[in-house]
Amino acid sequence: MNQLTGACIIGQSGGPTAVINASAQGVIQTALKAECITRVLGAAHGIKGVLDDKLYDMAQEDAAELDLLQYTPSSALGSCRYKLADPDVDDTDYKRILEIFKKYDVRYFFYNGGNDSMDTCNKISKYMQKVGYECRIMGVPKTIDNDLNGTDHCPGFASAAKYIATSCAEVWQDAHVYDTGMITVIEIMGRHAGWLAGSAGLAALTGCGPDLVYLPEVDFNMEQFLADVKAIYEKKGKCMVAVSEGIHYADGTFVSEAKTSATDGFGHAQLGGLAAMLAEIVKKETGAKVRGIELSLLQRCGSHLASRTDVTEAWKAGAAAVEAAVAGNTDKMVAFQCTRDENGYKCETVLQPLDIVANFEKKVPREWINEAGNSIEQPFIDYVLPLIQGEANCPTENSLPRFARLKKVLTTSM
Amino acid sequence: MNQLTGACIIGQSGGPTAVINASAQGVIQTALKAECITRVLGAAHGIKGVLDDKLYDMAQEDAAELDLLQYTPSSALGSCRYKLADPDVDDTDYKRILEIFKKYDVRYFFYNGGNDSMDTCNKISKYMQKVGYECRIMGVPKTIDNDLNGTDHCPGFASAAKYIATSCAEVWQDAHVYDTGMITVIEIMGRHAGWLAGSAGLAALTGCGPDLVYLPEVDFNMEQFLADVKAIYEKKGKCMVAVSEGIHYADGTFVSEAKTSATDGFGHAQLGGLAAMLAEIVKKETGAKVRGIELSLLQRCGSHLASRTDVTEAWKAGAAAVEAAVAGNTDKMVAFQCTRDENGYKCETVLQPLDIVANFEKKVPREWINEAGNSIEQPFIDYVLPLIQGEANCPTENSLPRFARLKKVLTTSM
Repeated sequence: MNQLTGACIIGQSGGPTAVINASAQGVIQTALKAECITRVLGAAHGIKGVLDDKLYDMAQEDAAELDLLQYTPSSALGSCRYKLADPDVDDTDYKRILEIFKKYDVRYFFYNGGNDSMDTCNKISKYMQKVGYECRIMGVPKTIDNDLNGTDHCPGFASAAKYIATSCAEVWQDAHVYDTGMITVIEIMGRHAGWLAGSAGLAALTGCGPDLVYLPEVDFNMEQFLADVKAIYEKKGKCMVAVSEGIHYADGTFVSEAKTSATDGFGHAQLGGLAAMLAEIVKKETGAKVRGIELSLLQRCGSHLASRTDVTEAWKAGAAAVEAAVAGNTDKMVAFQCTRDENGYKCETVLQPLDIVANFEKKVPREWINEAGNSIEQPFIDYVLPLIQGEANCPTENSLPRFARLKKVLTTSM
Repeated sequence: MNQLTGACIIGQSGGPTAVINASAQGVIQTALKAECITRVLGAAHGIKGVLDDKLYDMAQEDAAELDLLQYTPSSALGSCRYKLADPDVDDTDYKRILEIFKKYDVRYFFYNGGNDSMDTCNKISKYMQKVGYECRIMGVPKTIDNDLNGTDHCPGFASAAKYIATSCAEVWQDAHVYDTGMITVIEIMGRHAGWLAGSAGLAALTGCGPDLVYLPEVDFNMEQFLADVKAIYEKKGKCMVAVSEGIHYADGTFVSEAKTSATDGFGHAQLGGLAAMLAEIVKKETGAKVRGIELSLLQRCGSHLASRTDVTEAWKAGAAAVEAAVAGNTDKMVAFQCTRDENGYKCETVLQPLDIVANFEKKVPREWINEAGNSIEQPFIDYVLPLIQGEANCPTENSLPRFARLKKVLTTSM
């Protein structure tokens, strides 16, 4: 084993999830135990914390508070959406990162995020290789969007999926309470991939699922959509629709942004989001009572409804990143390799080159969506269902969430 | 004891809650055991089911499914928003109700709902007295709005309050993740009373509460609101606001409906609700990134996050109604009488005349709101906190909610 001794930095980046802190916990707790890791530093707001020399000394935190990270939504160290330049064009940031790495003798760098964050991680990795600074760099996956390449699924996705399916089932009950007509449009996150919107379809397992589900993998057609809704509404007197925020027309225009559409009269100046807009259009077309519901931030921070499977896997992804780096690996992202068969569901961590992960969006296979493009097929359910199993059982105080309270003690150079 | 033998009808009315079915369960299970109650009939969609002679035979239901009612949001028998006429003006409906009562020998009538439903219940009670038809009529309280008179609180309120406080705490975490400015506006139900919006303030107990809370009990002033938000945003770089959907200007106009306001330029034709509208106004005023979130139906059907105290009390309210009626009481609503002192929280059921309950909206006392009208005071917290205690622990199947599945067998006259 190639022993490398030095400090480590853990950074969180991109949109938060219900379990990204479980991954941070996995990294921090494993790193604190690793003999070759001399200090565990948490970057304030991801790579910005490195650039700004704003690093927290994680050894100062109470162990009990670190344990609570797995139940705490959002990014406890702070996040950022900072894009590093192409180092061939402008290497200012890279020089600064190297300076900070040298200042604290950083030999391990763990970056927890989605597509853009893996791109950041990849660029830093390649730069450090180029300048010959020995540092083991590992990506830890995270994204509710579930669109990272090279991994069966991403930590964070399952908890959001569970929140969405449960909420859809509950709203279904509410939306079916009167004997008068009612159409409900639920807007779900996922700009380019329909993993989350499709997960609304899991609610069908409770007997209370949406009638129609629209994913961005299929071009949206407003006339067909209205025909779909009307057909169900006329038959049942109710209709519940789940739509991805990322549905778009064939020309690529997002439905949410289209001021005028192919079909006249659908254009709207709007304050609300897609759900409100579609609700208004459906109302005009059908005359029915319509309600638009946007799950908004709730779906990505609902840790009280997190999947235990997701929490556990997120922690393992963090721990595996440290173990792999200590064992000599670098320039990789931890990924999941899973089997779903008669023996149940199994998930192992593997390593993928950062190159193949960065800047690629994994979409829902077309054959997992029905031909009409308004519902999901069984393989989608078989894929997602194992991931949402188990309850997180978040600790409470006064029957309200007890989140981790970190001291965030800024570190000094020695 | 004045023994009265005959059938009973249970009806659910008004907007659903997370626990109204727990009350129905309390009524049904207690009534099925009562010797003097010959049949237990569930009215399809409240009083409309009586008028339409659409009654379910509750004895046909599986006991295990009835047990699941306490975990099932919305109104399992169906609800309605049907307003009975003044019987002195038009007694058609009352005659029809009497006809149905006679047809099935109904001697017990339990009506589960909020203000309007207690009005319905009261009118039927007075009519039956007037025509000399012996029938014991009991109201069972329900409303997330918590605005019923004569009771410490209403079943359904606490679970919504818990959902709101928990969701606000989670969203707070999400909204504070970046080191860039962010203002969040969360819209909460409650058209005339601020019990629910005020409950957002409970999130402060987690360390993650809204900075500002606006209730409809205080006249809204847009300029003051913008000044409040700006002051906090300038100080913290973040601001989280909870608003009741029912906030209104001094002249009574709802802010959500005002196309033009006292301050020019605030008028908006809108598709989204109040949160989207306020977010847009705040964005224009501050230039900050702003997000409007409407908790919508989610807050009233979130049974996965129901308060155990609420579920238990809701069941007891239903059971107490049957017990009181069997014991000879009529023309009453079951109410809660509570103590909160050094010995903790205690809740007893008592009976209140329907007259004093119907058509009166109980507001949040002005002194429970701070002087500036933008936050709640400690007495509000002391009042609500005991009500949200405990987890419902809803049963799941595939880690998704397992709701009650009723057969709903329509009854025949004999």
